[in-house]
Amino acid sequence: MSPPFRLEVLATDAASRARQGRMHTPHGTVETPVFMPVGTQGTVKAVGQDDLQALGAELVLANTYHLMLRPGEELVHSLGGLHRFMAWPRALITDSGGFQVFSLAQRRKITEQGVEFRSHLDGSPHLLTPERSVAIQEALGADLIMAFDECPPSNAGRAAVEAALVRTTAWLHRCVAAWSRGPSTLFGIVQGGLDLELRRRHVEEVCAVDLPGYALGGYSVGESPEAMRASVAEVAPLLPADRPRYLMGVGTPVDLVHAVAAGVDMFDCVLPTRCARNGLLFTSRGKLVIRNAVYARDERPADEACGCYTCRTHSRAYLRHLFATGEALALRLNTLHNLHHYLDLMRRARLAIAEGRFAAFVREVEAREGEAGPAG
Amino acid sequence: MSPPFRLEVLATDAASRARQGRMHTPHGTVETPVFMPVGTQGTVKAVGQDDLQALGAELVLANTYHLMLRPGEELVHSLGGLHRFMAWPRALITDSGGFQVFSLAQRRKITEQGVEFRSHLDGSPHLLTPERSVAIQEALGADLIMAFDECPPSNAGRAAVEAALVRTTAWLHRCVAAWSRGPSTLFGIVQGGLDLELRRRHVEEVCAVDLPGYALGGYSVGESPEAMRASVAEVAPLLPADRPRYLMGVGTPVDLVHAVAAGVDMFDCVLPTRCARNGLLFTSRGKLVIRNAVYARDERPADEACGCYTCRTHSRAYLRHLFATGEALALRLNTLHNLHHYLDLMRRARLAIAEGRFAAFVREVEAREGEAGPAG
Repeated sequence: MSPPFRLEVLATDAASRARQGRMHTPHGTVETPVFMPVGTQGTVKAVGQDDLQALGAELVLANTYHLMLRPGEELVHSLGGLHRFMAWPRALITDSGGFQVFSLAQRRKITEQGVEFRSHLDGSPHLLTPERSVAIQEALGADLIMAFDECPPSNAGRAAVEAALVRTTAWLHRCVAAWSRGPSTLFGIVQGGLDLELRRRHVEEVCAVDLPGYALGGYSVGESPEAMRASVAEVAPLLPADRPRYLMGVGTPVDLVHAVAAGVDMFDCVLPTRCARNGLLFTSRGKLVIRNAVYARDERPADEACGCYTCRTHSRAYLRHLFATGEALALRLNTLHNLHHYLDLMRRARLAIAEGRFAAFVREVEAREGEAGPAG
Repeated sequence: MSPPFRLEVLATDAASRARQGRMHTPHGTVETPVFMPVGTQGTVKAVGQDDLQALGAELVLANTYHLMLRPGEELVHSLGGLHRFMAWPRALITDSGGFQVFSLAQRRKITEQGVEFRSHLDGSPHLLTPERSVAIQEALGADLIMAFDECPPSNAGRAAVEAALVRTTAWLHRCVAAWSRGPSTLFGIVQGGLDLELRRRHVEEVCAVDLPGYALGGYSVGESPEAMRASVAEVAPLLPADRPRYLMGVGTPVDLVHAVAAGVDMFDCVLPTRCARNGLLFTSRGKLVIRNAVYARDERPADEACGCYTCRTHSRAYLRHLFATGEALALRLNTLHNLHHYLDLMRRARLAIAEGRFAAFVREVEAREGEAGPAG
């Protein structure tokens, strides 16, 4: 018997749906709302597991699609599972592989059975089904695993979205049947694009299956931030209040605090890590493009209000020099900073909820980090 | 007045010229024999200053040629010097720029005045003279700085080598005249290729100038390891015993212990860091090529006898996965390991000298890590 997974809600905001809590997993507790760094290939790009622990990351996401291709889930399983393989003692979540199959793989063919595709690495043929996705994720041994779903593009017509919903619901039932109910906890995923009627209908279908947690998929796939935020504000509260709610693949700091206000507990996004590798730093005063010549002689830290290793140690001038000269250390220092910024945003959100001042916190983040916020 | 630089010899080996000691610099003491990681552009590639401190590095080398081009010594000086710019609190050494001008720059023209060249980055014209090299190094604020010399290729004829020696001696006198005798301590450099008569003559010319330390240049430029070791064994003991002796740009672990036996105190080399980035790990049982498929399921650390972060934390299987998937973390973990191997080799050499068992230590390193040593 694995320890039971559960969400403990510790505080709720009076003026919004925001709640602060704690998830209990076989690899430790996870304070929520939580941001989960993306460790695509069993490593969060450019940082080490020592860095992640020092940052206070409690839950890291890995991608089933990438790991099934390299090094293969059988190899990871035979070496004791993904926690041991990557030497990560805290909680792990894997996605179903579906999203990457749709965004990365070649020559996809979707059938009721699943998705046939060819690897983007070597063109080798693969078949991903609900049963196989669950089996791979259980072989990897993640604490949280995701149902295999179909995520249509944002410009898909209503008929295509409806067909994807029917398929996603059928696949969810097959995922549940395939799930061993071992230490890996299965989450269902609600799709439906920006159509509120379809979202409501799919929430009912998915939440009719009693699962430990539910996710919202199909956002941040090309729609405007305003449309996404408005939809999440309507849909998130429809998910059961006693289960964690996970908004997949979102987003900017302002996206996150808006979603927290809608009652979302979990987030993953490549934005902080990918932007870091492109020299874009998130700061308490907005975005800072570290390669800009204006920083060549700037002795200040990237963010004067930040307590991360990078800001405690290095000047903008040095960070710019490292980025301009293509040094690997630039990737690590920028990634440490951006991950700290996101993890700290969630720490501050939790505290604001617990202290009954979340609305003011959202306004502060909007003013400082919103699209119209002050420049770095 | 800067604190006086000096070498304190603490123990000498009875059976060789090896000695164990301590150099006092404005940025802390440096235990000798010492290996100095190469921080080309003001960063040791793929690791952070936190990593270098954890590794116990006490002296790091930076390249004048690279820093004069990017970001420029004036910028570094105006921001408080290289220690502050790179946030490195311990000792720094810079080279003269000469070696890189000869190996990297375009359209070189050597005159008595100095070397005219064009930047390998943008083709911009530059002139490096003995006076300018010392001025740049003093502006960077390194604790140890090197005289500007001419290093002829290993296949240069005797006439070319003799001409380079005449020029190097003349340039040394100009370096000494230009040197402020401030906090940066100037070392002279002996050249002469593999010709013992020329080496002896140049030792006399260079050591006639009373300097705090002396270096051997012009090794590891294409000659065989045996020829290099034999020459160093003859030449190093000719340098004054009360000053540190620095063998520039050398070499393998076996090269290092042989040179220590000849009385050398200081080494720098890109070998551990460059090999790390190419997936070649130095271990106590020889070299290990981590990308090899044989390691795909190997749960052992890279070196079972190693106590570095990488070996304490990660398996060969994970290191191979990171390297095979092109992840930046591979560069950092491999570099941490190889630098630890070199720094630990020097720690063990110091202890062996202090405990009067250096000859046995050399035999052990030769047997385990020599070209004919056992495979990984």
